[in-house]
Amino acid sequence: MKKTLKELAEYLGGKVIGDETAEVSGLAGLDEAREGQITFLANPKYAGKVAATGATAVVLPPGAERHGKNAIECANPYLAFAKLLTLFHVRTPAPRGVMEGAFVSSTATIGTDVTIYPGAFVGERVTLGERVTLHPGVVLYDDVIIGDDVTIHANVSVRERCRIGSRVIIHCGVVIGSDGFGYAPDGPRNYKIPQIGIVVIEEDVEIGANTTIDRAALQVTRIRRGTKIDNLVQIAHNCEIGEDCIIVSQAGVAGSAKLGKHVTLAGQVAVAGHLTIGDNSMVGGKSGVPGNLPANSMVSGIPAFNHKDWLKASIVFPKLPELRKTVSLLEKRVRELEEKQTVSS
Amino acid sequence: MKKTLKELAEYLGGKVIGDETAEVSGLAGLDEAREGQITFLANPKYAGKVAATGATAVVLPPGAERHGKNAIECANPYLAFAKLLTLFHVRTPAPRGVMEGAFVSSTATIGTDVTIYPGAFVGERVTLGERVTLHPGVVLYDDVIIGDDVTIHANVSVRERCRIGSRVIIHCGVVIGSDGFGYAPDGPRNYKIPQIGIVVIEEDVEIGANTTIDRAALQVTRIRRGTKIDNLVQIAHNCEIGEDCIIVSQAGVAGSAKLGKHVTLAGQVAVAGHLTIGDNSMVGGKSGVPGNLPANSMVSGIPAFNHKDWLKASIVFPKLPELRKTVSLLEKRVRELEEKQTVSS
Amino acid sequence: MKKTLKELAEYLGGKVIGDETAEVSGLAGLDEAREGQITFLANPKYAGKVAATGATAVVLPPGAERHGKNAIECANPYLAFAKLLTLFHVRTPAPRGVMEGAFVSSTATIGTDVTIYPGAFVGERVTLGERVTLHPGVVLYDDVIIGDDVTIHANVSVRERCRIGSRVIIHCGVVIGSDGFGYAPDGPRNYKIPQIGIVVIEEDVEIGANTTIDRAALQVTRIRRGTKIDNLVQIAHNCEIGEDCIIVSQAGVAGSAKLGKHVTLAGQVAVAGHLTIGDNSMVGGKSGVPGNLPANSMVSGIPAFNHKDWLKASIVFPKLPELRKTVSLLEKRVRELEEKQTVSS
Repeated sequence: MKKTLKELAEYLGGKVIGDETAEVSGLAGLDEAREGQITFLANPKYAGKVAATGATAVVLPPGAERHGKNAIECANPYLAFAKLLTLFHVRTPAPRGVMEGAFVSSTATIGTDVTIYPGAFVGERVTLGERVTLHPGVVLYDDVIIGDDVTIHANVSVRERCRIGSRVIIHCGVVIGSDGFGYAPDGPRNYKIPQIGIVVIEEDVEIGANTTIDRAALQVTRIRRGTKIDNLVQIAHNCEIGEDCIIVSQAGVAGSAKLGKHVTLAGQVAVAGHLTIGDNSMVGGKSGVPGNLPANSMVSGIPAFNHKDWLKASIVFPKLPELRKTVSLLEKRVRELEEKQTVSS
Repeated sequence: MKKTLKELAEYLGGKVIGDETAEVSGLAGLDEAREGQITFLANPKYAGKVAATGATAVVLPPGAERHGKNAIECANPYLAFAKLLTLFHVRTPAPRGVMEGAFVSSTATIGTDVTIYPGAFVGERVTLGERVTLHPGVVLYDDVIIGDDVTIHANVSVRERCRIGSRVIIHCGVVIGSDGFGYAPDGPRNYKIPQIGIVVIEEDVEIGANTTIDRAALQVTRIRRGTKIDNLVQIAHNCEIGEDCIIVSQAGVAGSAKLGKHVTLAGQVAVAGHLTIGDNSMVGGKSGVPGNLPANSMVSGIPAFNHKDWLKASIVFPKLPELRKTVSLLEKRVRELEEKQTVSS
Repeated sequence: MKKTLKELAEYLGGKVIGDETAEVSGLAGLDEAREGQITFLANPKYAGKVAATGATAVVLPPGAERHGKNAIECANPYLAFAKLLTLFHVRTPAPRGVMEGAFVSSTATIGTDVTIYPGAFVGERVTLGERVTLHPGVVLYDDVIIGDDVTIHANVSVRERCRIGSRVIIHCGVVIGSDGFGYAPDGPRNYKIPQIGIVVIEEDVEIGANTTIDRAALQVTRIRRGTKIDNLVQIAHNCEIGEDCIIVSQAGVAGSAKLGKHVTLAGQVAVAGHLTIGDNSMVGGKSGVPGNLPANSMVSGIPAFNHKDWLKASIVFPKLPELRKTVSLLEKRVRELEEKQTVSS
């Protein structure tokens, strides 16, 4: 596929400086790019490399020196790089329909241009939108509803009545709608509380491999539009995850927690149950959040507190044995001072 | 389904106060419940809402004010709530037998009233009890033994010779009986120690989505009766988990650890190998248990120690920089005192 | 199967002392072993048990007292134990070919003596080596390449173009080649960066149940020869894991991290992105590695530092409230000393 710089500038929402009829057919890094390719300058540190690149054109932030190269000025060259990768490297395969060896219930409603691979299972009264792909081993229990342009990778399980919005991507091995972990104590034993709610995944969400999202006890566990969840994450029953959150691998969110918009949980974070995290908050890696956080919080630690304060405290921690020794010596010295003073008075 | 209060009181082991012929057909919260429904008061904080509820009847703890409503007195209204949910909302679907597209070995022994979905696989000499459900993508390796009334959700794998007791529920994506992680150093390399033991899951256990339980090296990894395990938990080889334990999401138990009865591991806990945790112990979220714990322990921290002490130490931790500064100033002041004293003496 | 001590000594690379024609047909522990079995002394602590064992022969370290028993001297009796377990207990089943109910693309290339179970799926242009076993529910996307003597357990997913070396063992539920977690900020939203690289798993690697290994953004996520990975581990995109590493359960390695040879990550460790861990390093359980580590490091803590120093600091941590109280008292006493001195001067 060849594209002129003019076409690319339109696609990227940028502006050509130089020959807008020049054509490129792929992208590569500043060092590797050759004639016929486009490259990009995302980090000002590498501005000097623009002069030496073999690329036909460079995506640059506005005002950056182009060293006589053809350039496309874009406000966000890193985003432009991602968009060019999509343009040149992502191909939607032709739909293959319901393939032989797929199990599709006669009561399911299937949109046009779907691909259902052998070994996928579609239960009773399931609804699939258009251009949905179900890879082998996908299991949709009864009454699941799937939007348009959804890709569900191999060996994913979606339990009964859960709903998946349009353009959602679910990676291999994910489990959506498993029973929440709820028991009523019955003497020393535990009586299972039926989990009769569902999970709703809104549009444009992406869910990483082997992540688990439990159905609500009574109502809805909800993942809002645009949120991205990494691998091996646990979202417990009744949680509500706001729009455009980033939840990194192996993080866990306990039952009934509510995350605002644009919250970031770094890797292996734990969020306790029944709390609220305000919009735009960030939780540092391996931290444990025990209580509510206001918007724009930035916390770390177990239990978590202000991130900068945590950094400072963490620097002192290795010196605790030394600090304790100093304090012991001080006690001795103060005692001696006190004794001498008593003697002298 | 309609039930009289008399029938419900018998089912719950409670006592009707008011009209025992009154009928209800569902349950709801104090605020939401309407005529024809039953509600419950689990938290004394909400006792005042009983007067205003629209419910036909209320489940109450003994002695609570019923404000003239029909009531069922139960020692444990929260448990009653769970039992009513089960009664009104959980339906056992009719068994569907071995469905077309299921792979069942001719040497397997299958109980009556099972449901084996398309895409499930039952290996050689497997034994299934009565009323077992195997969802699509369940793989039972050779010689697996499954008790009665067991539900195994989609895409679960159970390796050869493992045994699952009656009334066990296994959620989607669980792996039971994978090889324990054992190697003998062979110079810089690692030689695999064959894992020839098995996993035994006793009755009434529930296992959360994508949890993994490894087979023993030589003998048995055992999960005892009634234990409930959440999602993404790791139980390593040779572990023995006692009866009625609660193991919350993303916790991990290392090889050969033994948990007593009624132990609670909160989320993301780690338990080291070859240790013993006594009955009724609780380990706080994200903690790491490095050694044996006596019965009734309550610990937190990495490494874990007494929970209350951990709370107190955690309050000081953020103040470490300040504490160190105070100590530095004290050193200076003591030095000055010492110098003056030397001068004055 | 019966073996003479002579045959076993050759297999183990050891030396018979006693009757080299004596035959054994199995192995057991020092206490349990009986006539016709071989046992082993791996821990010098149990040397006294050799005299009393009922075994026909004992594997011993060179120079250990054999109490008149037939013995095989081996430099590493624990390794010998593992090798004897393999010899007596591991049977390779006869290959069963492509079984009915397996889905194998007509464009796939399949080696000799494979076993492909019902419900396994082999995509377009996949290459399988010789003696490969694919259990039910294994999904190999298009263009995957698998070496010889590879075992892939049930419900594993391998995404397009990934490559698996010879003698690799992949346990149930593993996901290889899922998209790396990469987004370009686009205002408050996140734009998916296509992940067009692959995963390469080299020879003799073993990967535990439900572990996830993401494909690189552009190039290769690589697991080098001989590395052993436990269950529920996360390896992010672009990582490079050196030879003969040991990565214990629920550990996570963030994007673009590089581990040298023979690195050990204990359970629930987190390694930050874009860093390097030198050869032979060990990271203690639940630790978080924030930056580069030189070879032979031994660290613990969040953030991690020298392991021995961490042990010492961890002993002081529970005493922080007491330490703070001591410091407060010292402040008071020093103030009093200062005041008296002012008065007396």
